[in-house]
Amino acid sequence: MILFQCDYNEGAHPKVMERLVQTNGEQTVGYGEDAYCLEAAQKIRKACGDESLAVHFLVGGTQTNLTVIDAALRPHQGVLCAATGHINVHETGAVESCGHKVLGLPGEDGKITAAQVEAACIEHRDNDSFEHMVQPKMVYISNPTELGSIYSRAELSALYEVCQKYGLYLFLDGARLGYGLAASDNDLTFADVARYTDVFYIGGTKVGALFGEAVVISRDELKEDFRYLIKQKGGMLAKGRLLGVQFDALFTDDLYLEISSHATVLAEKLRTTFVQKGYELVAPNHTNQIFVIMPDAHLDALREHFGFSYDHRVDAEHSVVRFCTSWATKECDVDALIAMLEQF
Amino acid sequence: MILFQCDYNEGAHPKVMERLVQTNGEQTVGYGEDAYCLEAAQKIRKACGDESLAVHFLVGGTQTNLTVIDAALRPHQGVLCAATGHINVHETGAVESCGHKVLGLPGEDGKITAAQVEAACIEHRDNDSFEHMVQPKMVYISNPTELGSIYSRAELSALYEVCQKYGLYLFLDGARLGYGLAASDNDLTFADVARYTDVFYIGGTKVGALFGEAVVISRDELKEDFRYLIKQKGGMLAKGRLLGVQFDALFTDDLYLEISSHATVLAEKLRTTFVQKGYELVAPNHTNQIFVIMPDAHLDALREHFGFSYDHRVDAEHSVVRFCTSWATKECDVDALIAMLEQF
Amino acid sequence: MILFQCDYNEGAHPKVMERLVQTNGEQTVGYGEDAYCLEAAQKIRKACGDESLAVHFLVGGTQTNLTVIDAALRPHQGVLCAATGHINVHETGAVESCGHKVLGLPGEDGKITAAQVEAACIEHRDNDSFEHMVQPKMVYISNPTELGSIYSRAELSALYEVCQKYGLYLFLDGARLGYGLAASDNDLTFADVARYTDVFYIGGTKVGALFGEAVVISRDELKEDFRYLIKQKGGMLAKGRLLGVQFDALFTDDLYLEISSHATVLAEKLRTTFVQKGYELVAPNHTNQIFVIMPDAHLDALREHFGFSYDHRVDAEHSVVRFCTSWATKECDVDALIAMLEQF
Amino acid sequence: MILFQCDYNEGAHPKVMERLVQTNGEQTVGYGEDAYCLEAAQKIRKACGDESLAVHFLVGGTQTNLTVIDAALRPHQGVLCAATGHINVHETGAVESCGHKVLGLPGEDGKITAAQVEAACIEHRDNDSFEHMVQPKMVYISNPTELGSIYSRAELSALYEVCQKYGLYLFLDGARLGYGLAASDNDLTFADVARYTDVFYIGGTKVGALFGEAVVISRDELKEDFRYLIKQKGGMLAKGRLLGVQFDALFTDDLYLEISSHATVLAEKLRTTFVQKGYELVAPNHTNQIFVIMPDAHLDALREHFGFSYDHRVDAEHSVVRFCTSWATKECDVDALIAMLEQF
Repeated sequence: MILFQCDYNEGAHPKVMERLVQTNGEQTVGYGEDAYCLEAAQKIRKACGDESLAVHFLVGGTQTNLTVIDAALRPHQGVLCAATGHINVHETGAVESCGHKVLGLPGEDGKITAAQVEAACIEHRDNDSFEHMVQPKMVYISNPTELGSIYSRAELSALYEVCQKYGLYLFLDGARLGYGLAASDNDLTFADVARYTDVFYIGGTKVGALFGEAVVISRDELKEDFRYLIKQKGGMLAKGRLLGVQFDALFTDDLYLEISSHATVLAEKLRTTFVQKGYELVAPNHTNQIFVIMPDAHLDALREHFGFSYDHRVDAEHSVVRFCTSWATKECDVDALIAMLEQF
Repeated sequence: MILFQCDYNEGAHPKVMERLVQTNGEQTVGYGEDAYCLEAAQKIRKACGDESLAVHFLVGGTQTNLTVIDAALRPHQGVLCAATGHINVHETGAVESCGHKVLGLPGEDGKITAAQVEAACIEHRDNDSFEHMVQPKMVYISNPTELGSIYSRAELSALYEVCQKYGLYLFLDGARLGYGLAASDNDLTFADVARYTDVFYIGGTKVGALFGEAVVISRDELKEDFRYLIKQKGGMLAKGRLLGVQFDALFTDDLYLEISSHATVLAEKLRTTFVQKGYELVAPNHTNQIFVIMPDAHLDALREHFGFSYDHRVDAEHSVVRFCTSWATKECDVDALIAMLEQF
Repeated sequence: MILFQCDYNEGAHPKVMERLVQTNGEQTVGYGEDAYCLEAAQKIRKACGDESLAVHFLVGGTQTNLTVIDAALRPHQGVLCAATGHINVHETGAVESCGHKVLGLPGEDGKITAAQVEAACIEHRDNDSFEHMVQPKMVYISNPTELGSIYSRAELSALYEVCQKYGLYLFLDGARLGYGLAASDNDLTFADVARYTDVFYIGGTKVGALFGEAVVISRDELKEDFRYLIKQKGGMLAKGRLLGVQFDALFTDDLYLEISSHATVLAEKLRTTFVQKGYELVAPNHTNQIFVIMPDAHLDALREHFGFSYDHRVDAEHSVVRFCTSWATKECDVDALIAMLEQF
Repeated sequence: MILFQCDYNEGAHPKVMERLVQTNGEQTVGYGEDAYCLEAAQKIRKACGDESLAVHFLVGGTQTNLTVIDAALRPHQGVLCAATGHINVHETGAVESCGHKVLGLPGEDGKITAAQVEAACIEHRDNDSFEHMVQPKMVYISNPTELGSIYSRAELSALYEVCQKYGLYLFLDGARLGYGLAASDNDLTFADVARYTDVFYIGGTKVGALFGEAVVISRDELKEDFRYLIKQKGGMLAKGRLLGVQFDALFTDDLYLEISSHATVLAEKLRTTFVQKGYELVAPNHTNQIFVIMPDAHLDALREHFGFSYDHRVDAEHSVVRFCTSWATKECDVDALIAMLEQF
């Protein structure tokens, strides 16, 4: 069986694992205040071109989302996001568990627009019952989104401007950021992401690390006391250096982007086959996720040899499924899948 | 100025006020354990035809909703309701503030159906990521709804059945329950409401009391320790007897339903005029709320003499507005409004 | 039976009740934005000698405490208070329910000192694990305290200074404020309380109103969006004018202080008897609460005619009990109790 | 520099690391449903001698504590623990952040007794204001405690009995469980711990793993939907197999207890020196933590070569400090420290 189910089916990239093994016996202080964390943070600041950024390392994505959002909002404030957003659907209500409403905005491709955010702000302000409604105070986006789509530089900067205009924070969930930056149609850099958000994170779990997400904060008021929040929410790893060591490796010699490209190139190869074979792509994109409509009969045949995720039924005989590549995907495995697809 | 803005523009019904004055100097124990509360609870049990019901008195609607919902749910559980539901829109995220996601279901008339609830339960259960999603555990409806519509006996019992089938609690917000039971097309009784829900409340604030909502619990597991929750959420009135005295008055000689009918009869009179004059009703109903599309020019003229609530804009020249009657509405005031409408 | 159990055994002062009756039929807008609320707020500002104060009306004490505290704190911050403080013991964990730790400080008389607050701040700051501990950000005191004791002007200003020094908010719970200001040994005024706190409230429930607490905010950052918090926590009364009408009455012709004095004078009369009869007072004070050690045999005899609250057992034959007077206490009832005490 | 600061200064035990490396390239499903987690859970069940136990793997201690406690309690319920308990002092209010009060009980040695729990339950029940107070529903203990002390079998079973009697859950935090079971005066087994608690966890972070805590649940009602809670609180590791692999290694050939004994033996060696040299031990114990009163002059000298944690000041010239051994401590490092102590 070859798994294309998700981008966290394997352990860590060999270079990351190697560093963990090399440093395993060393003694360091705990809780992310060791030299490895300091060094990794510095490399991330450099990649983003901004020395003033605060960088913190957490273990996983849901944990990071809830910590950032709860750190930023007062009790009556909520977070705008795509209705399909991870925080709105797939985190078991983690944000609500911290007391905050997620305000879902409709959309087709997993993205939201500056115009939607502006409309939501105006609707709230120009309303006699505004104090009876949750006050929008943050915008959450993911890049790539749940559907693999990405924001252009123009779209991101427009979102940031409208957030500035209405006093909202812009938070970018970069659980798969590498695969977005490595997409063939991407025009964003780390520096752009840092510039056009108030806080974002660089996903490690899905991009070469065993686990770990690097939170990067540019807005001063969000930096304050952030470590208290990490601790309270259970995200402060005792052996914090494990996060530092991993991100240090990922941000050495451009490893992070290099292994991300590996994934998007292989995804593109696979995607081309799907298109050539006449399958319809859902939410077409150039990142590491492929959402495709396939006949159930083909899926049944594939299941004997390949893992993929089932998304939803389209009609009596067709379903949407997802194939993911990652830094760990082997080209021979992609070729094997292509070979089988060619037979249909 | 004559106000038709809402059903809480005045104080209390004279008979309620009279009882408050009569009992004002008496000494009683606090926190709802006095004889008036016991007596009022007993009268409500009798009206519902069920001696086993637990009855508690709280001050207001948002407080009641958040207390009931937080008492019922575990942290990972959420509450299904109409997307237009009060808890989803107009309580400043009170339910989320207690940690629970509100799962909005679409709809036209403020109501949700048993089929929608069943579909939501099935979607949750038949999903590989079910543990990553909020578990539906309660259904919240209001009767009448935010749009003045009401549930028939068949609709309510179908909802209750599907809740039983999937292990959900059914909670009915009766902030305006009197106006629902007094609607010309209603076929529900207090006993039906008690039978086909797990918990509901009888609104006093909008139906003759200065304030107060009577929570009626039929499901045993929801009865447990409910008073702790009332206290914790700030709803336990020190002079609890004020609530008992008021509900005792409202449930003496059918006062509650009698004054509710007063409101719905006057609403019907006004509604008939709107229809005769050719205005389009939105979410037509027979309770105390009239949602109507009117030209802005007419609204400007009305505003000089009458209060009403502005709902939303329809097009460049028309808006939806709401007129409310209540137990306190004077027929002469309705006639004055009708007279003005006749002039358009 | 004559009840001395608490200061909320009766309804409202006749002048308050009279105003409620007079205004009952009037139509006003809801949610505390009516003319009565505006007028009452203005009178309170005047009594405090500060036009810049924000004034809001809530229904009860627990609700007010949780709303103010949750409005003020970020998630990792806690509130220092006497271990005996109402929020620490008798609100069913309402503050924790909003996510915040109550940090109890030891003490004998229900009060805390500036030195204790300073020590707590220093302990937190000079600690390697400071981010692993809740950050003190607010000091909660009540005046009078749970034990009837009061703060002097010097004590209060010292607390305020230390709070300013360490960046903490000072919040004074004035559920019984009138009885504190009317104590024979009090040297505080409303203006002092406003000046030496960041936020406080003037209790109505226990001092002449049917219910109601007036929150007075001097610190600008605590004023922001406070009405959202009131709504979210269930404290925004639909018929908000009920609160305005009552506080307007209480702040007309010094009624609030006048009826408070009535209570403290009668308490002093009763207290004198206890002392003369040789009973030991616990936490001696000059407000409306008397904590006294009595033989159980005397208590059994008293119980036939008088209500009081049982506090705790001292030894096999003695207990601490509490007698309360209030604005509603009749001198003849105090005399009846004294007469019975004289017989022991 | 040689660090004795804590038991998480190094990475993982070589055998654990080796397994992580060996399995790194394998593909598995995520979220703890892989074969390694199933196998590790089965080994833990076997060690506990109970096939009915539910076993879940989380990343860290604070996360585990807040997840277990929030899963168990209704909103008005709180958790009893030693005032020095980790959840009460060193988790930045994580439990309160989930809405629950921590009810601290006094004590000298970090432990609480069955008698204390019974007294707290009785005090709550026999109290007129019981509904105004947080309801105790869980007892949290750690073994070893924060001070290194351990519970005997008799003490633990007495606690469990009193919890059963009063309907409380008993939760044992075993972040350092190995060092407790390996203490020379210990009489508990894994099976005892499973039998005399409702839920406990086996700490991996401090006992040989890179990270990870294994939650073991015996009480059926606590098993229900526990994975939802793990996900909501951010503790569900995407690459869950990392936890399975590590605990599988730790529970193969008794590695967990073997490496724990290594630590306690070395601690005993060091402890003997302290005693022989006349230093006073605080909270004497036979686990891996040594709390000792030392002259500041000695501490200054030690600091040049050794790391340890500063606890608190005793007087002008003495402080309490902590030395920790762990599975990773080298005997030569202990000998070096002893050599230096011998010189004082």
